[in-house]
Amino acid sequence: MSIVLGRNQYGKAENHVVRIYRDSARHEIRDITVSSALRGDFTDAHITGDQARVLPTDTQKNTVYAYAKKVGVEQIEPYALALGRHFVDDTAPVEGARIEVDEHAWERISVGGEPHDHSFVRKGQEIRNTVVTIDGKGDNQSAWVVSGLRELVVLKSTGSEFAGFLTDGYTTLQETRDRVMATTLSVRWRYTTTDVDWGKAYAGIRRILVEQFASVHSLALQQTLFEMGKGVLEARDDVAEVQLSAPNIHHFAYDLERFGLENNNEVFHADDRPYGLIQATVQRDDAPAAGRAGETSWSS
Amino acid sequence: MSIVLGRNQYGKAENHVVRIYRDSARHEIRDITVSSALRGDFTDAHITGDQARVLPTDTQKNTVYAYAKKVGVEQIEPYALALGRHFVDDTAPVEGARIEVDEHAWERISVGGEPHDHSFVRKGQEIRNTVVTIDGKGDNQSAWVVSGLRELVVLKSTGSEFAGFLTDGYTTLQETRDRVMATTLSVRWRYTTTDVDWGKAYAGIRRILVEQFASVHSLALQQTLFEMGKGVLEARDDVAEVQLSAPNIHHFAYDLERFGLENNNEVFHADDRPYGLIQATVQRDDAPAAGRAGETSWSS
Amino acid sequence: MSIVLGRNQYGKAENHVVRIYRDSARHEIRDITVSSALRGDFTDAHITGDQARVLPTDTQKNTVYAYAKKVGVEQIEPYALALGRHFVDDTAPVEGARIEVDEHAWERISVGGEPHDHSFVRKGQEIRNTVVTIDGKGDNQSAWVVSGLRELVVLKSTGSEFAGFLTDGYTTLQETRDRVMATTLSVRWRYTTTDVDWGKAYAGIRRILVEQFASVHSLALQQTLFEMGKGVLEARDDVAEVQLSAPNIHHFAYDLERFGLENNNEVFHADDRPYGLIQATVQRDDAPAAGRAGETSWSS
Amino acid sequence: MSIVLGRNQYGKAENHVVRIYRDSARHEIRDITVSSALRGDFTDAHITGDQARVLPTDTQKNTVYAYAKKVGVEQIEPYALALGRHFVDDTAPVEGARIEVDEHAWERISVGGEPHDHSFVRKGQEIRNTVVTIDGKGDNQSAWVVSGLRELVVLKSTGSEFAGFLTDGYTTLQETRDRVMATTLSVRWRYTTTDVDWGKAYAGIRRILVEQFASVHSLALQQTLFEMGKGVLEARDDVAEVQLSAPNIHHFAYDLERFGLENNNEVFHADDRPYGLIQATVQRDDAPAAGRAGETSWSS
Repeated sequence: MSIVLGRNQYGKAENHVVRIYRDSARHEIRDITVSSALRGDFTDAHITGDQARVLPTDTQKNTVYAYAKKVGVEQIEPYALALGRHFVDDTAPVEGARIEVDEHAWERISVGGEPHDHSFVRKGQEIRNTVVTIDGKGDNQSAWVVSGLRELVVLKSTGSEFAGFLTDGYTTLQETRDRVMATTLSVRWRYTTTDVDWGKAYAGIRRILVEQFASVHSLALQQTLFEMGKGVLEARDDVAEVQLSAPNIHHFAYDLERFGLENNNEVFHADDRPYGLIQATVQRDDAPAAGRAGETSWSS
Repeated sequence: MSIVLGRNQYGKAENHVVRIYRDSARHEIRDITVSSALRGDFTDAHITGDQARVLPTDTQKNTVYAYAKKVGVEQIEPYALALGRHFVDDTAPVEGARIEVDEHAWERISVGGEPHDHSFVRKGQEIRNTVVTIDGKGDNQSAWVVSGLRELVVLKSTGSEFAGFLTDGYTTLQETRDRVMATTLSVRWRYTTTDVDWGKAYAGIRRILVEQFASVHSLALQQTLFEMGKGVLEARDDVAEVQLSAPNIHHFAYDLERFGLENNNEVFHADDRPYGLIQATVQRDDAPAAGRAGETSWSS
Repeated sequence: MSIVLGRNQYGKAENHVVRIYRDSARHEIRDITVSSALRGDFTDAHITGDQARVLPTDTQKNTVYAYAKKVGVEQIEPYALALGRHFVDDTAPVEGARIEVDEHAWERISVGGEPHDHSFVRKGQEIRNTVVTIDGKGDNQSAWVVSGLRELVVLKSTGSEFAGFLTDGYTTLQETRDRVMATTLSVRWRYTTTDVDWGKAYAGIRRILVEQFASVHSLALQQTLFEMGKGVLEARDDVAEVQLSAPNIHHFAYDLERFGLENNNEVFHADDRPYGLIQATVQRDDAPAAGRAGETSWSS
Repeated sequence: MSIVLGRNQYGKAENHVVRIYRDSARHEIRDITVSSALRGDFTDAHITGDQARVLPTDTQKNTVYAYAKKVGVEQIEPYALALGRHFVDDTAPVEGARIEVDEHAWERISVGGEPHDHSFVRKGQEIRNTVVTIDGKGDNQSAWVVSGLRELVVLKSTGSEFAGFLTDGYTTLQETRDRVMATTLSVRWRYTTTDVDWGKAYAGIRRILVEQFASVHSLALQQTLFEMGKGVLEARDDVAEVQLSAPNIHHFAYDLERFGLENNNEVFHADDRPYGLIQATVQRDDAPAAGRAGETSWSS
């Protein structure tokens, strides 16, 4: 028996890059947070402390900012692909890379009804995300793109039931035919190609997710999530699987009868913790293997 | 010399109330967090532990939820006024109340281009807020409303300078004629009346704040804040003062020349800490006294 | 009527300074977060944008770090006093300063039972804090020190009651003679002098606070807070007042009888929100005026 | 091609349980946050909305609190094992469970030098954690225990170098022979058995981790992490692998020479973001397979 180094990676996390496009008076803005991680045979760095094969995380940081100029960040996926490929292709000991990018959206401030040229307000709502995984050198190189969103908070005030469930000696929950359903969505979808109209794909998938949430009469959050994932897969041939993780943010109708007031699902206490947590993957039965992109998952 | 009880208050903080209006198939939603605090002579409770004059915080919680039905929360200011007046008017030992309400905005999900009847997405962006202070009983009662917003993140990619400043032996900053200016606005404004079209007032003031931020060519964040407050006061006779607190979120142009790349204010590192913090009050010179509402301030 | 500039201040917030004392092989560490704010007549900066009287926040940052070397940070109060006085005394337009310092404590790692010379672990628990207010120039200068702590989480599993309280139509709470009482303490105390053995004072006051929390049989959190403040004032002539802010973190006994299990105050659900919030000041009846230090308060 | 349900699980997350042992006047406290997740064939729940095989998350919550009484939580691992086995053994459709428990430590308040019977202060520092994975029914059942800690913040003020690293066109970092090394440790270790003296094991492993951090002269954070993991594996035959995730919290020596002050690694700016992130697994080369416990990982 001996003690050995197992899986490892290292990089620079959460580089907060703001990129302004100012080729005309009408500026554009991209606001991203970038995390790089490099993989390869770094045994010496760990065991003897020899750093000869280690490209510093400080260098990775410089590269993250430099690539925001060199290749730009109009869309986060091609930026992440270029960055990941650079690290693997141009650094001899690096055999793989994982690049994660969060994007915060902004919109133009309106002044007198006209969108302003160079003033913006943070849009709030969800964070767009991508994780690009590059594995291998030259002809053996694979690239996966898993994109997604998180912190998209949705609620429906009716059209949600929960009944007919399994019971045991610890069950006290009553069935309900009408409840508030609310969640903060985290969704990732894995593309089968790197040839995608990224911005359009994101907008389309986001639209399907919220439309399905709104439209499906829900018998359980599980069912709603499945229909959301299914809607995405039906619309896009280039998506192999959709992972959804959704806390069930409980809204408890407040007992107002004690005070002589009716509460017909009008006044709720929105509780913080504990919360239900429903996690599901919806996939094609002939989906290609996820490879190391499979590590990017809600199930940790 | 003796040891005495000084200023004190107690209440129930951060009741998370969600109110659904469902009188028709087209539901409305209000999502608020309510904190109550009661004032009066609670000396016995502190010194001997006698609770005979203390209305429990649990009772305050019940009342917060009951009033969401009884008076409703279409606008947060009249709801907070009703709640505060109830505590003071209907509870013998209570001589004053402070009710603070945060509101998170939601918007309808669009399905096929049509706003959905009962499905919503959290709007993100700023939190609307009000602090209502009730002081005194009967004819001696005063009521103040200080409303505001926070977490409104704005940025302009040009139109901001900083030059001609005072220097000393610790000064290393270079002057700049073109920088990114970004901040997360916290603003409170004090009304001089409780007879206001609250929703319209809020929308109008928010619009002025962001329009001024966008339109003013900035020589310093101080100047921008002053113009924002001035714009509000010029537009509304019923506002006595505007308090603004604004972190200067520093965007440092990344040095890319080291890598043979030009960076003409295109690539920035957005830093977290430290940050500048600019706080200013803009007021009428004949503004009525703030009374105990003056305690609701950025300057703590 | 005209629109004028009211109260204002500006500075650099949350400078995270780590100071290592390495005069011998046995290093010492101080880990502080420093926020500066300057006051004076900055009307021009706000109204015309003229920065001639404005010492940049960047300069303040440089000074914060320089003073960590120049005067050191063995204790946070004299460091903050020196920094505040420097800004007011050495900068012509500056008439007042507010310096706030948070300190995170570390302790030595033990190796084989011996405290290590230069390796430390963050202690967790409370953050020590001071706010120094300097007001005026030369002979008219006043200096106040308000020190304190926050995020000190304490709990007693018995020895706490709540009964005999006022009731109204919204009261549903049952009386209890035995409950869990838990809180996260925020305490500030105002010294009447700047001639204090700061470290010893802090340790002594902290000890009194937690001992009183433990020892007082509590009839209400109000009573416990009063006894804590009173204990401090009795022990220290140089403290004029103690401000305490304490959330009542509710621990609800979980109903286990439904499952045939007894729950004699053994199993609790610790709830997040809402929470009671009790705020009290305990003071000497002959305490000197707080001046502008009175703005440093829990009551915002 | 068809669209199918992939990996899925559901449960109740972050139940905050406080357990008081009060069999004598000297109380004991356990403060835990428990998340359950159940696995099995829940296809119908997702596809048709039929909940007949779904034990509600509300029932799981009740069970979490009931088991805090029924089996107790003296140590988190046997509590989690009992809970996980109950769900799988006693619920027909449940084929696997993942139970995660965080524990916050408390210590007794000292009054007059004596530890108090029923008053406690939160210890701060690290969160102890375990993830128990149960997979399969009856004789085919496997159980894995992966325990760990997070939020353990350590720093050494010397004894750390970084030199001899790989460079490319984006490298600007200077070599250093003396730097501050600081990190917030997240560590998980996988036991090979469920027959462990859990509390003693935790204390011993934690001690090794911090002693190794202190004692190893570091040539890189990678090397320090490897030695930490190796130390654990050498000391404990019942641990198969150690996963470590460690942000490199950068401490930049502040340039004080500009102000005529020497800075011999005495004054640092501790930066928030970006940060290095080093992740490594140290394992036995004959370690048994991790099975579904392998999903509990830093690499997401």
